[in-house]
Amino acid sequence: MDDVIKKLNKLGLSILNDIENGKNPSMEIPIRSLSNVIYDKKTKQLTLGEKKLKRHFFNVAHSKKFMQTLLVAAFCKSLAEEGIHTSIRDMYYNLKRSFPGTKENTFDEQSESDPIIVDLEVMLDVLREQLRLTTDRKGIVAGNVIIKDRGDTINWAKLGSGGWSIPSTVEEIEFKKVDADFVLVIEKNAGFERLHEDKFWKKENCILIGTGGQAARGARLLIQRLSREFGLPVYVFTDSDPYGWYIYSVIKSGSMSLAHVSDRISTPSAKFIGLTISDIYKFDLKRCIIKAREVDIKRAKELLNYEWFQKPEWQKEINLMIEKGVKAEIEALSNRGLRFMSETYLPEKIKNEEFLP
Amino acid sequence: MDDVIKKLNKLGLSILNDIENGKNPSMEIPIRSLSNVIYDKKTKQLTLGEKKLKRHFFNVAHSKKFMQTLLVAAFCKSLAEEGIHTSIRDMYYNLKRSFPGTKENTFDEQSESDPIIVDLEVMLDVLREQLRLTTDRKGIVAGNVIIKDRGDTINWAKLGSGGWSIPSTVEEIEFKKVDADFVLVIEKNAGFERLHEDKFWKKENCILIGTGGQAARGARLLIQRLSREFGLPVYVFTDSDPYGWYIYSVIKSGSMSLAHVSDRISTPSAKFIGLTISDIYKFDLKRCIIKAREVDIKRAKELLNYEWFQKPEWQKEINLMIEKGVKAEIEALSNRGLRFMSETYLPEKIKNEEFLP
Repeated sequence: MDDVIKKLNKLGLSILNDIENGKNPSMEIPIRSLSNVIYDKKTKQLTLGEKKLKRHFFNVAHSKKFMQTLLVAAFCKSLAEEGIHTSIRDMYYNLKRSFPGTKENTFDEQSESDPIIVDLEVMLDVLREQLRLTTDRKGIVAGNVIIKDRGDTINWAKLGSGGWSIPSTVEEIEFKKVDADFVLVIEKNAGFERLHEDKFWKKENCILIGTGGQAARGARLLIQRLSREFGLPVYVFTDSDPYGWYIYSVIKSGSMSLAHVSDRISTPSAKFIGLTISDIYKFDLKRCIIKAREVDIKRAKELLNYEWFQKPEWQKEINLMIEKGVKAEIEALSNRGLRFMSETYLPEKIKNEEFLP
Repeated sequence: MDDVIKKLNKLGLSILNDIENGKNPSMEIPIRSLSNVIYDKKTKQLTLGEKKLKRHFFNVAHSKKFMQTLLVAAFCKSLAEEGIHTSIRDMYYNLKRSFPGTKENTFDEQSESDPIIVDLEVMLDVLREQLRLTTDRKGIVAGNVIIKDRGDTINWAKLGSGGWSIPSTVEEIEFKKVDADFVLVIEKNAGFERLHEDKFWKKENCILIGTGGQAARGARLLIQRLSREFGLPVYVFTDSDPYGWYIYSVIKSGSMSLAHVSDRISTPSAKFIGLTISDIYKFDLKRCIIKAREVDIKRAKELLNYEWFQKPEWQKEINLMIEKGVKAEIEALSNRGLRFMSETYLPEKIKNEEFLP
């Protein structure tokens, strides 16, 4: 039987057991608030602490959420049994109904059903994707890789001007062939397209992943699978600003809001290839710098304090940004020519192993 | 020689000619402001009127824009000659420089270079995509279609859980096989994924296109090519609200801001399959309706006045929305079961030809 169905069954049986023994039915859920998020220096990941809460059926403050949790759990079980996937919005609409003779609804807003899904993730130690609740596709990939997905064999090297659009259900794909020396993750889709057109992944024998901003869960799962299962180094390439650096840190160490799944979707071995503030001066991009806004400086100061940005190389870069009051985008490299990024900047950084930790 | 290079050369030669004849160099550009946008009842498309403006080199108010126009034109010519593509942001950074001995830059902000591209589109009667300036990839497609793109043969029926991610350079793809009875365009990506998982395109022998909100230029180009070159009927499926209906109208008749390219990117034969306000009542989705906000009602009243929404069927639907003060999302159909959309709602609408014009 499907592992997820087993876990959902176990939850149902424990409630039944409470009822049969005349106990107040309850479930235990690890607390997800910031107070229970810790950075684990050994694994280099954000993770949840030990604090838990108990949700009871016979408790006026808990009973609605208790009922909602069981509704969502039953819904996920039926998805697994039918072998289908759906979005969290469709789930909300599917479960929305009113109780006869009352004005009470199962759910009034989607903002009530969304956190229940995370509760189940934490409580059952499963990923939302394993519960078959999908997120929007975001991110693209190209490279010398052949996969099997829902019965089709797909060659990431033969997709024309596009790449393969990364689904949220990355756990379900099967790798048939992976021929690459490293993974290059780029924040900007336009940069992905430029590198793809220049056949960067072919020339440098790598897998190219475009995240289109903050990496979606699917992209992060994919990066981790490539790192863990094939031992590939991962280099992350973002804008030179606190937002870009945070994209890197989420890929590497996880995020606070998803700390409970860091071990399954983050990649602690990832390294930062650029853009650094030093690059702006080294590569004479001064005419393309952007003045940092107040909010950028504030965010940079926050990063300075994060445990996982304590490495001297990062402290130096972040302080340089604050001192000069500047930032820059990946596209600034185009000032040196449209192929400068693919033919000079990236190959040299990789050859000289110029990464931030 | 490339048609676009010819047109760019012609522009350059006419300026040279002005100079050699001692004339004030000038170029003529059709006006794109709303006052020059008209709805052509015969073609069912928004289009530009006859008004034009002249940009002169020796005119303090024009000379900077004149210089910028020639810079962008020269840049596009070099893209065509080198056979590469790039984004408009990369172009901005590439062209940004300062004039020695002055504080003047070619461009200070990207908001200066973007409109120049549209000027060239209008003036030369070419698409921005033909100038090799790409937009972000948006939209996905699946179906019994085989294409050739940058040397690769791609089968839209063999892409696993995903579809093919639609590029902005749709003009460059070559159709090798198109086996379908119609095109279904759906606004929501989640809906695309649900239909794709249920193999809707296989069962109904159609091409399924997900636009992910307002259709990008690439998706609109693709829809038009499938309609024009293969005579396929196009059915558009959006949320039941003014925003969704406008998505439909943009696919069908073009938009005001892109009126100058309507003839090449809109599909006047497209029909609207749903969601209608009447559907909410017909299919008993009342518990999933959303109360219309003031801005929705205001927008609905605007649509009521557009020439291309004058058909009685549309007037009835829009008035019904205003009267009841409600709207609904595609996902509301999930209240009738996750497969209701793919197995009942859409097939019955198509069989009974229940479309809005």
